[in-house]
Amino acid sequence: MNQATSETVLDRSDHKLILSSRVNGTAVFNRAGERIGHVDDLSIEKLSGKVVYAILSFGGFLGIGEKFHPIPWSLLDYEPERGGYVVPLDKAELTAAPYYDRYELTALGGPSHLSYGERIFGYYGPYGSVPYW
Amino acid sequence: MNQATSETVLDRSDHKLILSSRVNGTAVFNRAGERIGHVDDLSIEKLSGKVVYAILSFGGFLGIGEKFHPIPWSLLDYEPERGGYVVPLDKAELTAAPYYDRYELTALGGPSHLSYGERIFGYYGPYGSVPYW
Repeated sequence: MNQATSETVLDRSDHKLILSSRVNGTAVFNRAGERIGHVDDLSIEKLSGKVVYAILSFGGFLGIGEKFHPIPWSLLDYEPERGGYVVPLDKAELTAAPYYDRYELTALGGPSHLSYGERIFGYYGPYGSVPYW
Repeated sequence: MNQATSETVLDRSDHKLILSSRVNGTAVFNRAGERIGHVDDLSIEKLSGKVVYAILSFGGFLGIGEKFHPIPWSLLDYEPERGGYVVPLDKAELTAAPYYDRYELTALGGPSHLSYGERIFGYYGPYGSVPYW
């Protein structure tokens, strides 16, 4: 166990639970295997404790600066061999997906959360996402 | 909206979703209203995306140094007037609750997660917690 680095621990598919501090910062790849950014934060439904969105930061990698893409949690698939999450979209599909600046991330969970949700889950519905409400 | 500080945004009970970065660091109070520590991390069931435990750090406040108490998410109740979460336990009940060091927090979600879970949910069952498995 002493030789277990944080990477190898993260890789373990037999781990049923993961700490939010381990998820945040983890790399995200698109369907083609290109690294598109990382998980910056998680948006959680207070009452149920369910993670609704992983907030992906593309951090300028796609040239869109400080923009954040909320993606339904269920679309993230952890791939140990890549050491990161893979989302089932290509670059064009990700670029066209809803994104927000940091300030709007707070509004995402506020009184207008359904408007945000309808737009986001409307976009990702064809990929199999089911709304949280 | 310009005068909204992070505190007032956090206080809003009409916010259905919250960012993990906002939860982590938030103060936690016991039933008597004493500040006992803060939320240090969240333990999430990978497949369902459900927050199973809030990892409370008592950061030496109770004299137990770097120990972490995983508490079922459902036991945390946000109280805007206090600006933090309240858990329905008193000081003695919290001191007697299962706690771990930082290294063990990773093991919490690993192959022995059921052993940890049985101990933790066994302890918190009388407070109304339902196991995640």
